[in-house]
Amino acid sequence: MSKNTGLNAIEMQYLRLSLGLTTEQVASITSTTHQDVLAWEAGETDTPVPVQKKLLDIDDIIEMQVLNTTDGIEELFKKEPKRRLAFVVYPTQAVYTQYNPEFLSTLPLTELYSTAAWRIKKECKLVLEVDVSLVALDAEAYKAYRADNGMSESRESRAKWAATQLV
Amino acid sequence: MSKNTGLNAIEMQYLRLSLGLTTEQVASITSTTHQDVLAWEAGETDTPVPVQKKLLDIDDIIEMQVLNTTDGIEELFKKEPKRRLAFVVYPTQAVYTQYNPEFLSTLPLTELYSTAAWRIKKECKLVLEVDVSLVALDAEAYKAYRADNGMSESRESRAKWAATQLV
Repeated sequence: MSKNTGLNAIEMQYLRLSLGLTTEQVASITSTTHQDVLAWEAGETDTPVPVQKKLLDIDDIIEMQVLNTTDGIEELFKKEPKRRLAFVVYPTQAVYTQYNPEFLSTLPLTELYSTAAWRIKKECKLVLEVDVSLVALDAEAYKAYRADNGMSESRESRAKWAATQLV
Repeated sequence: MSKNTGLNAIEMQYLRLSLGLTTEQVASITSTTHQDVLAWEAGETDTPVPVQKKLLDIDDIIEMQVLNTTDGIEELFKKEPKRRLAFVVYPTQAVYTQYNPEFLSTLPLTELYSTAAWRIKKECKLVLEVDVSLVALDAEAYKAYRADNGMSESRESRAKWAATQLV
């Protein structure tokens, strides 16, 4: 089961859990079947190397995202020393696809983006002592906010809306 | 929902997922009901502060365990420069309770111990370039191994058995 440096059944399971994914979601992003995923995690069959690589690559992408974003936030707070920040996440795949499409190729599911956001929150707390709150984008409320303030859709507008959600 | 610096619904969900727990397991270790957990994660009710604290404390304990174990492994490989290591995890709560009871007070579920093990594997790879394999304790095979080698039960015996499982 634990052949070479590949991932065995329990490692595949905890890699998946650490990414915040269900077995169905792993099947969907690796173009395999739910039965395949269950068989790997039960140790009945070895996980194909490309599947292992796909999930490990996603984990690496998330870690890179965490590092880059935490660096960005550290920069931000050099000029502007407030210690509270809102970070937009996307409550459904449809909202994620509409508003955050540039991430679809690297983090195909909104759950992966939320996992990255959670790790960013943890890292910011630990390293910068900055409180990051994850704010799920409420598409209707956000549209109304933009209309009220004459703002166009942009990452910055989303961040501004999210900041209004901190109480 | 995102009141003060407490955790909101989506943060509670991703904290749980990052710990590798189901909603049922969170209910069990926080002495709440499954319905409570579902209501927090749906944003229908706020998560009680003691529950938030309990889960955040567990996450801190895991991070401490990761740091300490990674330090220990770094020490080990100063003397003995092989780059492969087996780390025992426990496939069921019964096996965990029998063989690893000293962790029950801090990491009450075997899934939490496995989550710690997964993070240790990641950290060792990244920081030390050491390949750690998680090996689920097979109680029968381990007993046979001890009998064959005249060994008593101990953490060290388990580690030795686990090393035989690396191929």
